[in-house]
Amino acid sequence: IFIMAGLYLSFLFQLFFCLVFSLPTGRNSICGYRSCPATNPSMLNVHLVPHTHDDVGWLKTVDQYYYGDRNNIQHAGVQYILDSVIDQLQKDPARRFIYVETAFFYRWWKQQNQSTQRIVTQLVNEGRLEFINGGWCMSDEATTHYSAVIDQMTLGLRFLNDTFGECGRPRVAWHIDPFGHAREHASIFAQMGYDGFFFGRLDYQDKARRMKTKEMEMLWRASESLTPPLADLFTGVLPNGYNPPEGFCWDQSCNDAPIRDDPDLEDYNVDEIVQKFLNASYRQAGFYKANHIIMTMGSDFQYENANLWYKNMDKLIKYVNALQAKGSKVNVLYSTPSCYLQELNLANLTWPLKTDDFFPYADDAHDFWTGYFTSRPALKLYERLSNSRLQTCNQLEVLGGPKSKSGPFGEGDSDTMKRAMGVAQHHDAVSGTEKQHVAYDYARRLATGWAHCEVLVRNSLAILSGSEAPRVFCENLNISVCPLTESSHKFSMNVYNPLGRTVSWPVRLPVNGSVYSVTDANGRAVDSQVVPLSKSTQEVRRNRGYAKGELVFQVEAPPLGYSTYIISMLRDDINNKSVTFDETTGLLSSLTNLETNQTIQLTQNFYWYNASAGNNKESPQTSGAYIFRPNSSDPFVINKTAETQIVTVSSTVQEVTQWFSPWVSQVVRLYEGHRELELEWTVGPVPVADGLGKEVITRLDTDIKSSDYFYTDSNGREVLERRKDYRPTWELKQTEPVAGNYYPINSRAYIKDDKHQLTVVTDRSQGASSLYNGSLEIMLHRRLLYDDYRGVGEPLSEPGDFSDGLVARGRLLLTFTPPDTAADVHRPLAQGMVLQPLLSFQDGTPSANTKLEFSGLQTDLPPAVHLLTLSQWDEDTVLIRLEHQYQAKESKTHSQPVTVNLQKLFSTLDVLGASEMSLGANQWKEDMDRLQWNTSKPLPLSAKDPSPWEVTLNPMEIRTFLLRVRQL
Amino acid sequence: IFIMAGLYLSFLFQLFFCLVFSLPTGRNSICGYRSCPATNPSMLNVHLVPHTHDDVGWLKTVDQYYYGDRNNIQHAGVQYILDSVIDQLQKDPARRFIYVETAFFYRWWKQQNQSTQRIVTQLVNEGRLEFINGGWCMSDEATTHYSAVIDQMTLGLRFLNDTFGECGRPRVAWHIDPFGHAREHASIFAQMGYDGFFFGRLDYQDKARRMKTKEMEMLWRASESLTPPLADLFTGVLPNGYNPPEGFCWDQSCNDAPIRDDPDLEDYNVDEIVQKFLNASYRQAGFYKANHIIMTMGSDFQYENANLWYKNMDKLIKYVNALQAKGSKVNVLYSTPSCYLQELNLANLTWPLKTDDFFPYADDAHDFWTGYFTSRPALKLYERLSNSRLQTCNQLEVLGGPKSKSGPFGEGDSDTMKRAMGVAQHHDAVSGTEKQHVAYDYARRLATGWAHCEVLVRNSLAILSGSEAPRVFCENLNISVCPLTESSHKFSMNVYNPLGRTVSWPVRLPVNGSVYSVTDANGRAVDSQVVPLSKSTQEVRRNRGYAKGELVFQVEAPPLGYSTYIISMLRDDINNKSVTFDETTGLLSSLTNLETNQTIQLTQNFYWYNASAGNNKESPQTSGAYIFRPNSSDPFVINKTAETQIVTVSSTVQEVTQWFSPWVSQVVRLYEGHRELELEWTVGPVPVADGLGKEVITRLDTDIKSSDYFYTDSNGREVLERRKDYRPTWELKQTEPVAGNYYPINSRAYIKDDKHQLTVVTDRSQGASSLYNGSLEIMLHRRLLYDDYRGVGEPLSEPGDFSDGLVARGRLLLTFTPPDTAADVHRPLAQGMVLQPLLSFQDGTPSANTKLEFSGLQTDLPPAVHLLTLSQWDEDTVLIRLEHQYQAKESKTHSQPVTVNLQKLFSTLDVLGASEMSLGANQWKEDMDRLQWNTSKPLPLSAKDPSPWEVTLNPMEIRTFLLRVRQL
Repeated sequence: IFIMAGLYLSFLFQLFFCLVFSLPTGRNSICGYRSCPATNPSMLNVHLVPHTHDDVGWLKTVDQYYYGDRNNIQHAGVQYILDSVIDQLQKDPARRFIYVETAFFYRWWKQQNQSTQRIVTQLVNEGRLEFINGGWCMSDEATTHYSAVIDQMTLGLRFLNDTFGECGRPRVAWHIDPFGHAREHASIFAQMGYDGFFFGRLDYQDKARRMKTKEMEMLWRASESLTPPLADLFTGVLPNGYNPPEGFCWDQSCNDAPIRDDPDLEDYNVDEIVQKFLNASYRQAGFYKANHIIMTMGSDFQYENANLWYKNMDKLIKYVNALQAKGSKVNVLYSTPSCYLQELNLANLTWPLKTDDFFPYADDAHDFWTGYFTSRPALKLYERLSNSRLQTCNQLEVLGGPKSKSGPFGEGDSDTMKRAMGVAQHHDAVSGTEKQHVAYDYARRLATGWAHCEVLVRNSLAILSGSEAPRVFCENLNISVCPLTESSHKFSMNVYNPLGRTVSWPVRLPVNGSVYSVTDANGRAVDSQVVPLSKSTQEVRRNRGYAKGELVFQVEAPPLGYSTYIISMLRDDINNKSVTFDETTGLLSSLTNLETNQTIQLTQNFYWYNASAGNNKESPQTSGAYIFRPNSSDPFVINKTAETQIVTVSSTVQEVTQWFSPWVSQVVRLYEGHRELELEWTVGPVPVADGLGKEVITRLDTDIKSSDYFYTDSNGREVLERRKDYRPTWELKQTEPVAGNYYPINSRAYIKDDKHQLTVVTDRSQGASSLYNGSLEIMLHRRLLYDDYRGVGEPLSEPGDFSDGLVARGRLLLTFTPPDTAADVHRPLAQGMVLQPLLSFQDGTPSANTKLEFSGLQTDLPPAVHLLTLSQWDEDTVLIRLEHQYQAKESKTHSQPVTVNLQKLFSTLDVLGASEMSLGANQWKEDMDRLQWNTSKPLPLSAKDPSPWEVTLNPMEIRTFLLRVRQL
Repeated sequence: IFIMAGLYLSFLFQLFFCLVFSLPTGRNSICGYRSCPATNPSMLNVHLVPHTHDDVGWLKTVDQYYYGDRNNIQHAGVQYILDSVIDQLQKDPARRFIYVETAFFYRWWKQQNQSTQRIVTQLVNEGRLEFINGGWCMSDEATTHYSAVIDQMTLGLRFLNDTFGECGRPRVAWHIDPFGHAREHASIFAQMGYDGFFFGRLDYQDKARRMKTKEMEMLWRASESLTPPLADLFTGVLPNGYNPPEGFCWDQSCNDAPIRDDPDLEDYNVDEIVQKFLNASYRQAGFYKANHIIMTMGSDFQYENANLWYKNMDKLIKYVNALQAKGSKVNVLYSTPSCYLQELNLANLTWPLKTDDFFPYADDAHDFWTGYFTSRPALKLYERLSNSRLQTCNQLEVLGGPKSKSGPFGEGDSDTMKRAMGVAQHHDAVSGTEKQHVAYDYARRLATGWAHCEVLVRNSLAILSGSEAPRVFCENLNISVCPLTESSHKFSMNVYNPLGRTVSWPVRLPVNGSVYSVTDANGRAVDSQVVPLSKSTQEVRRNRGYAKGELVFQVEAPPLGYSTYIISMLRDDINNKSVTFDETTGLLSSLTNLETNQTIQLTQNFYWYNASAGNNKESPQTSGAYIFRPNSSDPFVINKTAETQIVTVSSTVQEVTQWFSPWVSQVVRLYEGHRELELEWTVGPVPVADGLGKEVITRLDTDIKSSDYFYTDSNGREVLERRKDYRPTWELKQTEPVAGNYYPINSRAYIKDDKHQLTVVTDRSQGASSLYNGSLEIMLHRRLLYDDYRGVGEPLSEPGDFSDGLVARGRLLLTFTPPDTAADVHRPLAQGMVLQPLLSFQDGTPSANTKLEFSGLQTDLPPAVHLLTLSQWDEDTVLIRLEHQYQAKESKTHSQPVTVNLQKLFSTLDVLGASEMSLGANQWKEDMDRLQWNTSKPLPLSAKDPSPWEVTLNPMEIRTFLLRVRQL
């Protein structure tokens, strides 16, 4: 794109209009591929990669890890790791180190004095310290949403770019620990400009096969929609997870023998160690194609005392290479993943192609890591809601202008929330695999982040609306708690819509009146209805709220804007009549789409798998935070029939309450004018007094002829086909008929046949499967009694606020359509679920000059276009990401290129210049020059932009721009 | 002394005749007291002393500790500690560190490149790295002999002096870990020029009292014989053992909270930590007299990652001292023990006087560390014999001249043995408190040391005798194994006498003949007798030897010289008659001294204490390697009567064998012309199949009216009075009637009344007590079934070579005299036991020109003078120590000043110059300028030297000289 009206970006390597360019570092540096060490083409080159793997929270909180606090839980202190590595790198220019997690590096950097910062900058400029991956954290791949992943990567990459310039730009993605790998992640990395991707964990059967066939390294074509090589990513499986070869761990946390090379002392062992290393090198070389192999010399929180590692590696290199003089053909060197990658690229070999993903991950026959898809459902929801809030916060920071950060309600910011969301993406955060106290810390950080955002949002809405009246947010509407609506007789509600098009939602407010008047921003009356609280809501809210009913009505808000509703109580004579249940009625039995006149048989019920206690004969594996392992493939039904009650049939909503047991209930809702059936489930406290851990699912059984096939999304975007007891890339020997068929879903899953598609849109990441023809099951909640031996050291048994176990509540949205129009419904439905409207309340009547409606856009975006990101970047720059939200071919209507005019987007911002960026916004798009790999065949190019301002999006494409803007 | 004929000493700070002076370092340095940091006289000054305590072997061998090998046993790697500390000291000139164990520092230093050596030298010269204690190890105080202690200190101090000059001279002795403190050690330290002494462990009752009365610091008058302040030593008890105050341990091995001073992160704790530190400082100040207190910031093998310590201490100092601006009166600083000591000295206070010692050590009511006095009796003997061999080796290196190190038998040296003996003095070495595999390592090192010495000794004896015929040493004479004497019909035996006077010993050689001719160097026939092997010897030797009897005769050798005996078999018709026992006879019943015509009733028997298994109600304390805790105060008798047999009554020897049980036997011997009764005991394998740990004693019960008093030596020198259930310095509450009355003996113990004294001279260090009037008991062997929770993690149950438990054999020499002449007998007897003759054998007849007799001295030394050290120092310099071996007043004859003429000592060396040194030989005697303390009263001076060459020794005085010599 050529339109850059004076855009001044201090952190980037390109300039357009002006030559004024303040590059912090690296101008004459030799970083990147040019800094790589020499290798020997006639030998086997062994690339030693010194690294540390620093979880951004797991057994300890991220700050405890940073400081090295609570070392009784786990010995780990990242501040010392960085101190030590920087010291040791200075001792020998040949030494290298990579650092990965910017959340930690950022904490450390800001505590260093200038002298240390200068030294570090020099190390970076010389390629001796290299940033790899570089996101705020190393994100989970199964339970994260692409929106939050892109954000956390952007946060980390920006810090590196601001601090180190081009030499700080990571070339390689590095997910050595996540428990399975999502295709969407690979696609994101490719679009961010990474040249390669390395990971440590994949299915043990898959790994065994790949070692045999030398397919440990491959080209991953990570999108069916994007034109190759846009989403092509060179991908390598590391030989030893991310650990060193056996016997060569020289960290303080290891007990391997040091190299004892003083002949005057006992136990001289140089010859023995060298021979062992040569053996390990040749063995590993047998599994890889090139005459270069990589060895990860490090592990969890290693290098706190880097001297131990480097001193022994120095000796190893010296003594192994000394044998070359005697004819040895092994050349060992300090290296980095990117230097290794460059050698593979130069080798000009042909690599196998991979098009599916790496789920589920099993490390042994009965050890499927499919439990964490659902672990900690409440944290998973809170993280998802927080993403919605962060996007809203970002948008309102842009729309409200500078005063949103310092306005009538004080100082607010979005940075705190960005960082909180950044750590929450970690593979032991939203994944639910952290210790309980750490889960609380993540939640607390998100709450603190929102508290900072809340001020910003208050300021911004005050600026936009012209009203500085106090504004209340209700955090607990999902359990019908909101002190203002419960007590006020007259109040207004601001509905902010973070989506790029006008959307309507049903709203439910806890109230104590029986009849209300609701009017919209234009003074038009809105249909509303007060419905009684469900029994489970009354139980769950306890004494936190006192509403007798919920006021239900539908609201609509313009794109990137808000609308205001005025609510007045008319009557307060609710009978607090007890809810009674009809004991003869039962479950859902069929579903009809009145638009298409389709009907399917549908029963839905709740079941629990009995979690393995590790006491059966095949394997001692238990179900735990990571692992899902049912004792039997047949789940127990909670109740064959439900006590049901039709609560309400009104023009606004139809509601049926189902009561399955004291710990499982559901409300089924159909809102007027909506195409989806809402199932609000409430599960918990899961009883475990019987000594049995329980993994609770809901199962939809239909007469759809889905056979063994079902479909799940990848990080909330592209959908992958799944087939029971089958993997596309190897002949699966299925050993866990249930757990081995579970896949992560982030936004949706569906089953279909030629005529019908049943799609479930979820409110958070969960595990799902289809184990029978026409059946789809989703795991909702888990409560377990044993640790599963993957390190967390706790059984997953979350305490509740008022009971011995956590109650989780959530929503599933069911749509039922013909397959060829399904995406037209579920794509916008899922985006609406992800980006929820933000409701805020003001008591009384808005003052006369209050602006009751606002939109930041000139008009709705086209239906295929999703506004993924709108966020203030620099003083006069905003970051925007526009996304084509349909896959190729999934929608007749929408799976087409669509064009957006960047200058005509905003109603309150004048766009002065635009510069297209890589997806991570750390490189100019036109500077992206990724390594080419032999498998990639040139394919027809995507549709071109019609003009510099008009940008065309192809299916599933995300385009990232920095816009220079001026508030109108 | 003024006689220094051109003596050139490159390592010392003084010169006499010449100005040529190659000082390695430190010429313009500001080390020592001048380098101490400023303090604040109006505040409480808290001296933080960063330190590491590096055991020279304990759970791992010394080399495993050095390298950090076998970290699965214990995480500890000294190479990394020194790497890390040197790095961290460079980061801030305020930081300080002390290093203690030269055995480790030596290993590290020789692996450093010149650049690192220069940096370290500068740190030493600036007082930032200070050597403290500085011996090869931190010696044990209960089970070591002063001769070996002085040697190991000399070895370490010399390395420091050679390497760093004056700045490497330690000012402070530092025994923070040894389990009780010997008065002789304090005396040695004083004579070595140390200004002060700090330790960590003392009886818990004593400590409690001292804290209350502020007597934690004192002046220790460590000799009753030496004129004060010669043996006066300022002594301080450290407040927390050698650990930091609770909550302030920042090593990687600790879990205390780091200082979290980033307000942007969670858990900011600066205020809390500072307050906690102020509280700890004021509390500690309450137990000490001065406005200076010391905090030991370190512990076992800490500082492997020194950054953790220094980073947090930097912050502590910064934040604590920042409060001074707000009125705080606490000043905290990096310091060293010597800087702390200097402040105490400047404080000009009066200190309490201490004249007894710190044995036994108890850390709780039932936790007396009196077991290790006897633990590993075989290792204790081997260490003692090795000292004798090392002295012999040293002497023969001097007497044989340069060719002794490189001569007809190859390359030999005494250094290996010096270092092996150096590590064997460690407080987990000869003490017997190491793991079994480490005990084997110490023994192996001593064996290797002797192997190097053996070559030197062969060379030297070849030079001195003129015979290069092969020479055989027999290591196993104590179990009657010596292949040459068993098989040869004619051989010669060289008897080397390491003492300064002519001595005669009985010799017992395993033979297969029945009658032998033995002639001395002058061809005179020597009485000899073949006696049958005892039953226990036959059992213990197994198939290692085949002798049918022992040839017994007395030999005599000139001082510092040898004599040669020729042995020829005359008849080989030994009847292998079975030994029979007289079942009616019993035990010793009386002892008569025919010279003085005295008789006492004496019964001797063997008993075992049932070791506590930790299952009684007072305390869970078990008996173990450290702790002695009998289950009952009454030991079980092995057998009330013994099967006895009079084996031999001849002109040479009278022998009676006693058989108490299959695992306890004894031979009682009286040699012609000797004043002592020899009891050769054999104990083991101690049976434990009954599930009872056993601690085996022998007890002598007499009618001597000793009441509660008995006497034990201190490190083999001065004798201290002991009193049952009593401590001289506090009112003892006795809680362990047996273990609480045990004391270490190194060479002797005695009981006495006005008329009689029964003295026992031992062959190794043991525990001893007198629990009844007239009774003296000595613990001989221990075999236990439980660890005693002091870290070693193993029960003390030593395996035997051929049986499931170790068999120990040893000798007690009993003398019975009037008290006022007892020392005249036991002093030379003990020295003869310590410095045993070295026997070597040559097959056949010596060639005609062989010199059969040699003495390195012109004449015997006076009876009061012991030649403690004679050792080659530099090419033309030898180190000599002359010792007055009598205490003041213990002998009418010998407790008088005695004079030796240095020029008239040697028969083969011309003494060209002499320079008197401190006891450790790292300082000119006249430069010794120790700090003065207020308690010391000036006392009459000792006798002066009559002339420069004639040096006078007062009782218990040791004088150390470097002599410049020329071989005549």
